[in-house]
Amino acid sequence: MSNTLGKAIRLTVFGESHGPCIGGVLDGIPAGLKIDTEYIKDELEKRKSISSISTPRREDDEPVFISGIKDGVTEGTPLAFTIANKDVKSGDYEEMSKIARPGHADYSAEMKYGGFQDARGGGHFSGRLTAVIVTAGAIMKKALEDKGIVIASHIDELAGVKDVEFDFDRAEQEACALNKKIFACLSDEAAEAMITKVEEARSDGDSVGGIIETVVLGLEPGIGEPIFSSAESELSAALFSIGGVKGVEFGRGFEIARMRGSEANDAFRMEGGKVVTSTNNNGGINGGISNGMPVVFRTAVKPTPSISKEQETVDFRSMENATLSIKGRHDPAIVHRAVAVVNAVTALTMADLICRRYGYIWFAEGNGEEDE
Amino acid sequence: MSNTLGKAIRLTVFGESHGPCIGGVLDGIPAGLKIDTEYIKDELEKRKSISSISTPRREDDEPVFISGIKDGVTEGTPLAFTIANKDVKSGDYEEMSKIARPGHADYSAEMKYGGFQDARGGGHFSGRLTAVIVTAGAIMKKALEDKGIVIASHIDELAGVKDVEFDFDRAEQEACALNKKIFACLSDEAAEAMITKVEEARSDGDSVGGIIETVVLGLEPGIGEPIFSSAESELSAALFSIGGVKGVEFGRGFEIARMRGSEANDAFRMEGGKVVTSTNNNGGINGGISNGMPVVFRTAVKPTPSISKEQETVDFRSMENATLSIKGRHDPAIVHRAVAVVNAVTALTMADLICRRYGYIWFAEGNGEEDE
Amino acid sequence: MSNTLGKAIRLTVFGESHGPCIGGVLDGIPAGLKIDTEYIKDELEKRKSISSISTPRREDDEPVFISGIKDGVTEGTPLAFTIANKDVKSGDYEEMSKIARPGHADYSAEMKYGGFQDARGGGHFSGRLTAVIVTAGAIMKKALEDKGIVIASHIDELAGVKDVEFDFDRAEQEACALNKKIFACLSDEAAEAMITKVEEARSDGDSVGGIIETVVLGLEPGIGEPIFSSAESELSAALFSIGGVKGVEFGRGFEIARMRGSEANDAFRMEGGKVVTSTNNNGGINGGISNGMPVVFRTAVKPTPSISKEQETVDFRSMENATLSIKGRHDPAIVHRAVAVVNAVTALTMADLICRRYGYIWFAEGNGEEDE
Amino acid sequence: MSNTLGKAIRLTVFGESHGPCIGGVLDGIPAGLKIDTEYIKDELEKRKSISSISTPRREDDEPVFISGIKDGVTEGTPLAFTIANKDVKSGDYEEMSKIARPGHADYSAEMKYGGFQDARGGGHFSGRLTAVIVTAGAIMKKALEDKGIVIASHIDELAGVKDVEFDFDRAEQEACALNKKIFACLSDEAAEAMITKVEEARSDGDSVGGIIETVVLGLEPGIGEPIFSSAESELSAALFSIGGVKGVEFGRGFEIARMRGSEANDAFRMEGGKVVTSTNNNGGINGGISNGMPVVFRTAVKPTPSISKEQETVDFRSMENATLSIKGRHDPAIVHRAVAVVNAVTALTMADLICRRYGYIWFAEGNGEEDE
Repeated sequence: MSNTLGKAIRLTVFGESHGPCIGGVLDGIPAGLKIDTEYIKDELEKRKSISSISTPRREDDEPVFISGIKDGVTEGTPLAFTIANKDVKSGDYEEMSKIARPGHADYSAEMKYGGFQDARGGGHFSGRLTAVIVTAGAIMKKALEDKGIVIASHIDELAGVKDVEFDFDRAEQEACALNKKIFACLSDEAAEAMITKVEEARSDGDSVGGIIETVVLGLEPGIGEPIFSSAESELSAALFSIGGVKGVEFGRGFEIARMRGSEANDAFRMEGGKVVTSTNNNGGINGGISNGMPVVFRTAVKPTPSISKEQETVDFRSMENATLSIKGRHDPAIVHRAVAVVNAVTALTMADLICRRYGYIWFAEGNGEEDE
Repeated sequence: MSNTLGKAIRLTVFGESHGPCIGGVLDGIPAGLKIDTEYIKDELEKRKSISSISTPRREDDEPVFISGIKDGVTEGTPLAFTIANKDVKSGDYEEMSKIARPGHADYSAEMKYGGFQDARGGGHFSGRLTAVIVTAGAIMKKALEDKGIVIASHIDELAGVKDVEFDFDRAEQEACALNKKIFACLSDEAAEAMITKVEEARSDGDSVGGIIETVVLGLEPGIGEPIFSSAESELSAALFSIGGVKGVEFGRGFEIARMRGSEANDAFRMEGGKVVTSTNNNGGINGGISNGMPVVFRTAVKPTPSISKEQETVDFRSMENATLSIKGRHDPAIVHRAVAVVNAVTALTMADLICRRYGYIWFAEGNGEEDE
Repeated sequence: MSNTLGKAIRLTVFGESHGPCIGGVLDGIPAGLKIDTEYIKDELEKRKSISSISTPRREDDEPVFISGIKDGVTEGTPLAFTIANKDVKSGDYEEMSKIARPGHADYSAEMKYGGFQDARGGGHFSGRLTAVIVTAGAIMKKALEDKGIVIASHIDELAGVKDVEFDFDRAEQEACALNKKIFACLSDEAAEAMITKVEEARSDGDSVGGIIETVVLGLEPGIGEPIFSSAESELSAALFSIGGVKGVEFGRGFEIARMRGSEANDAFRMEGGKVVTSTNNNGGINGGISNGMPVVFRTAVKPTPSISKEQETVDFRSMENATLSIKGRHDPAIVHRAVAVVNAVTALTMADLICRRYGYIWFAEGNGEEDE
Repeated sequence: MSNTLGKAIRLTVFGESHGPCIGGVLDGIPAGLKIDTEYIKDELEKRKSISSISTPRREDDEPVFISGIKDGVTEGTPLAFTIANKDVKSGDYEEMSKIARPGHADYSAEMKYGGFQDARGGGHFSGRLTAVIVTAGAIMKKALEDKGIVIASHIDELAGVKDVEFDFDRAEQEACALNKKIFACLSDEAAEAMITKVEEARSDGDSVGGIIETVVLGLEPGIGEPIFSSAESELSAALFSIGGVKGVEFGRGFEIARMRGSEANDAFRMEGGKVVTSTNNNGGINGGISNGMPVVFRTAVKPTPSISKEQETVDFRSMENATLSIKGRHDPAIVHRAVAVVNAVTALTMADLICRRYGYIWFAEGNGEEDE
C-alpha cells in the first residue's frame, strides 16, 4: 500500500529530499535480531557516491534508531529510524520548481498532488529515499545471512559495457566478494571500462544506465505464495518501486521467449540426495515458488534523468513550453548505487515471504545455527 | 495476498485444473455496472485455443454468475462466478503424478504443500485459472472503456517472428482492431509466419514462447501511488502472477539501460493545450505515476513447458531420476492466449489504482458520458 | 477488507439471501487439514432453526466444496464452497422491496448501492450468509481443537433470562458439553425459561435479544499483535461483522469500568510451575496479547428486526411515510443461532492470529499430537 | 496490521515510553489539508493530565512534523512526526523490570517478545503512544469538521458517577461545547463529583474507571462496507486498540439485548424531505452502514492498572511469586484523558471509510464549502 512494502514484515517510508530528514518504520520483525551497525553502514556506503563519478552531494547517511531497539537488539516492536538531510542546497532547485524535469516525477506528481507536494529535489520521489530502504533492507539481509540465505548483485552491464558472468560453481565466494565491493563488478577490467564510460557521459553533460543481476543463494524450495503473491510478483513489485527501474526479468527473462520448450525447461535431476536442475533458465522459481536453485533476476535501470544538457520541456503552472538545463549536483549514473537498493528490497521481500510461511518466529529458532 | 489481487477492487481466485470448477470473487466493485456477457465471452474466446495450434482440450468456459448481479447489473456486493471443468481427462496425468514436469510448478508446489496439493494438470497452478482472471478482467476492461480508457495488446514477437510496431498516431483504431482479433497481431503476415513457427514446434513435439506488448490509452495523468504502489509495481506484480511470464518492461525497458539520458528522457511539450511528451521511452509513467501519455509495457512469456519430447527429471516421491514424455493435450504456444490474460490483469490493476484515488464511486459518476 | 476477514488466514464471503447460492473462499490455510464433514454439519445444525422457536425456512445448508480439498484433506490452495439457496420464497418480499424494514440494512444499503443491490431477504446483508462463516469457522475450530485450543459459547442471557455462570474449574467439560448442545445453555432450566420467552414474543408478533458468552481455552500466552491488531481489536471486528451484534466486552467489560484498580487488576501467581491469575477480569488478554488464562468475552445481540407487528417506516423510493407488517418467515430470536456464528468468527480470528506468529506451518507441526 | 490502522488512510505508530521519542506516519491522506497546529495542540492538551487528578509526568507533547507538510499544508505524501520523551524517570521502573504489573502487558509482552522488549514504563504498550494517535486523529478530525462531520465525546460515567444525557436536539452545540472542555462532561456538577471520586481513589492508592460516549454528527448515509468492514467492525477494532478499553457498544448496546424488536427497531419517517428515525437505538448504523442518524457508541475504560497499593504478582524471569507496590507517577483515572484518544481513532476510522468510498480526493472537492 503506497509507502508500505510487505505483508508480514512491513517497511513504511517517509520523507522528502529537501526536508529535515527521511526515515522508515519496520514493523512485524522478530524480536532478538542483533542490529549490526557496521553492516548497515557498509550497505549505505555502497549506495553512496563514488567521488569521481557520483553526485558531490555529501550526506553522512547515518540512521538514528528512535524505537524498537534495546541494547542493539530488536525488541519486536516497530523499529523506526530517521536519516538527516544535512547537505541540502534547495537554491539549485528554485528556478526549476515549476519546470517539469524530463524523465522525473515532477509533472506526474503535480497532477496527482495538485501542486501541494514538495518538488525540491524530487521531494518524496527523490532517490534519496532509497537510503531508508537500504537501512531496513540491510537489517533483514543480515538476518537472512545468519540463517544461511545470501543475497548479492553485480552490475551486469553499464553504458553498454558487460561484466563477466556470475560463476555459480563458486556461488558463495562470488556473492561474498560482491558484497564487499563498493562498485559491484565481478571483473575489475569491466568496472574500469564502465567508470570510463560514466566519466565520458559526465563530461558530455549526459548520463548512462545499466542492468543489475541479482542472486539469492540458500533459499529452500517452497517459498512464494500462489498466483498473485508469487515470488516473482512480490520481487518485481519491490524492484519497480525503485526510481529508474524500467525492466525486471527472472532467469533468462526476455531471452527465454525466443527459446524452445525443450531448451527452456530446466531438467530436474538428483544430486547428492537433493533435487537440482541442470540449467536454471527459470531463475530458481517455478510457478511462482522457489525450487531450491539460486533465485536469479535482472533489473534494468535507466540513465539518470538529471542531466546538464539543455532539454525541451514545459512550465506546468503557466502551461508553456520551456527549456531546462539542470544545474544542481547529479550522478551521471545511478546503476552502481542502485545495487545496494536492489539487494535491500530483495532481502525485505524474501524475509516477508518466509515469514508468511513460518511466522516471524522463524528468525528466532536456532538463531541461525541450524546450518552448522 | 496470495490468491487475491488488488486493494480497492479485489479479485480472489480459486480452483484446480481437474476439480469440478474454477472460479472467482470480485469484491469492492461499484454498483451499477452493466455486465456485458458478449464482451466477456469474446475475451474468453481469445484466451481459448485456436484449433490448429492449440490444445484440443475443449471447454465452454462459460462463467456462471452466482452472486452480485441483478438484472445484468452489478449490485456492488461481491460478484462471484464459477466456470465448470467439463473436458477433464485426468488419466493423462496419472502416470505423471509423482514425476516433476520440468518448467512446471509440480516440484516446488510439492515442497510447499507437502504432497497435499492436487497435482493433476498443474492443479491450482494450471493455466486454466486464467479463465477466471479473464472473466473478471473483462468486466473491468469494459467498465474502463465506458469511461474512455482503452486497453489492448499485440503479440510483439512469437518464436522469433516480430509483428510490426504499434502506430500511436492511430492508437485508438489500432487498439480497437486488436481487441477484435483472436490472434492479436497488427500484421496479418506476421501472424501467419508466427502460426507456421508454432506448427513446426508442434510437429517437433516442442513449444515456443514470445513477447506481448500492451498499451493503455486515455489514462489521465496522476494515477499510481508513491514508491511501493507505483503503477509499475502494481502492474508488474499482476503480470508476473500469470504462469510462464518471466519478464516485464515498461517503455523502452531493458533497451533504455543502453541509452543516454539525453535520449531516454521524454521531452515535455504543449500540444493543443495539453502536456505531452515527444517520445515515450518511459512508457507513460514517471516516478510510478501516469503522465497522460499511453502506458506501454512488454511481457515475456516462456515456451509452454509441457512438451511431448522426452525430458530428464525426477520422481519427487521416490527421489530418483526419471524420464518423462508428456502425453496429454498441450499447446505448443500460449503467447497468443496470454494476450487476453495480460489485458485482464491490466484492467483489474488500472481500475484498482483509479479507485484508490477516486473511490469506487468514480465508475458511477456520469456513467461514462463525460467524454462526449 | 469488506467481504474478507483475516490477514494470514482469510475468508471471503459472497452471495445473497435469494440468489442461487451463498459461498466462501478460505485462503492461506495450511495443507493437510482433515475436513471433518460431520463436525461442519454439526456446527451448521446449531446455526439452524429449532422448529418451535425459529423460522420455518428450511435449508439443507450443505456446503459443496468446489476447490482446495483432495481426498477429504485441505490442499493448501484456496478452499471454496457454495451452499445452495433452495427454499426461497421471494414473493414474501415483493411488496417490501421499496419499504425500509426498521432495524434492517434496507435503507442504508440503498444509500450505499443506489438501488442496484438485491434487497430481497436482506440480500447480501441477510443472516443467511452466516452459514458461510460457520462452515469456514468449523474447519478452523476443529483444527484448533486438534491443537488443544477449545472454543465454546453459551447463551448467557436471552429475553432477560440468565443462564448460570460458566464454571472455569470444569472448563473443558463445560466447553465440551456446550459444543454438543443445539441450544447452548449451561442450565437446562434456564434454556426452558428462555424458550418460553421466545414463544411469548412470537405469539405477540414480536422478537427478543440476548447475550452470548464465549471462552477460548488452551491458548498459550503471547498471541495477539501490538496496538491495532490486539486480540481484542481483531476479535471485536469479527464479532461486529455479525448482523445484529451491538456490543462486545472482554472479561468483566462494562462492569470493570465501575471497579477500582485493586479489584480489577488480576493478580498473577505461580501455580504448578505456570503463571496464572487469581481472577480473570481482563478476560485473558493484557495489552491486547493473550496471557495464558481463558479468553472470555460477551456479545450483545439485538432482537430480530423482522417482526410481524405493524411498524412505521418509509418507502425509500417514493420518499413517503409508510407502514409495514412483515409477513415472510422470521425468527422471534436469533441469539441461540448466533452462538455458532460467534464460535466461527472466534476460531477464524484465533487461527489467523496464531498464523501471524507461527506461519500456517504451525498447524502441520506434530499434527496435534504435541499435547499427548 | 499490528501497528498500522486503516486501509485507505493509514496511521503507523512507533516508539516506547522511555525511548527518545514516539511518533507516527500518516499515509494515504489527501494533499492540500491545512494543518491547524492550535487544533492539534488543543486535542493533545485534553489527552494530558489535569494537575490535581493526573500523573505529574510532564511532557510538552509537541509533535515535530518531519515530512509530508509544506507551508503548513499536507503534501499528500506520508506525513511523519515525532514527539519527544523528555520527562523520563526510568529509575522508577528499574526494580519492576522483571515483576509483572497486574493488569498491564508486562507478562503477556514478555511471552510474545521473549524478553527483548523494552519493559520500562510499559514500553511500546504504554498509554504514552496515544499522544501519537491523538496527533494524527486531530488532523483528520479537523478535516472532517471542515466537511461538516463533527465528532465529540463525553465522560458518560466515571467511578460510578453518571453525567447527564447528550441532548440530540442541541447536538451541534453540545458537541461543540464538549470539544472545548478539558474534562469532557456535559454537566459541571457531574464533573465535580467525578473528580472528587478520582481524588478519593488516589488517596487510597487506588484507581477508577469509566465509560465514554461518542457521537458522530453530519455523516451521510451509506458509509461503511459490507460484513467484515462494517462501520461497527472498523470502529470497534480501533477503539479496542486503546489500552484499557474492555467494552464497546453501539446505540443502546448491551441494553438492546433486553428489548423487544418492536421497541429496539428504529422506525423510519420523513422529516423535512429527509429520512430520519424516531429513536436511535441502533446508533446510526444498520447492517454496518451509516443511516444518516448520529452515530453513537460507548467505550468502557478500566481503572488504571498502575496503583500504589501492594499487589500480589510474579517475577516472570525467576518464575516466583512476588509482591509489588508501584511507585512511579500514575493516574488514578485515565478515562478523561482517553476521551481525546477515542475521538482520534473515531476520526481516523471515519476518514478511512469515507475514502474507501470516495477516494482521498473527497477531501479536496469544494474544500469544505459544500455545506454553505
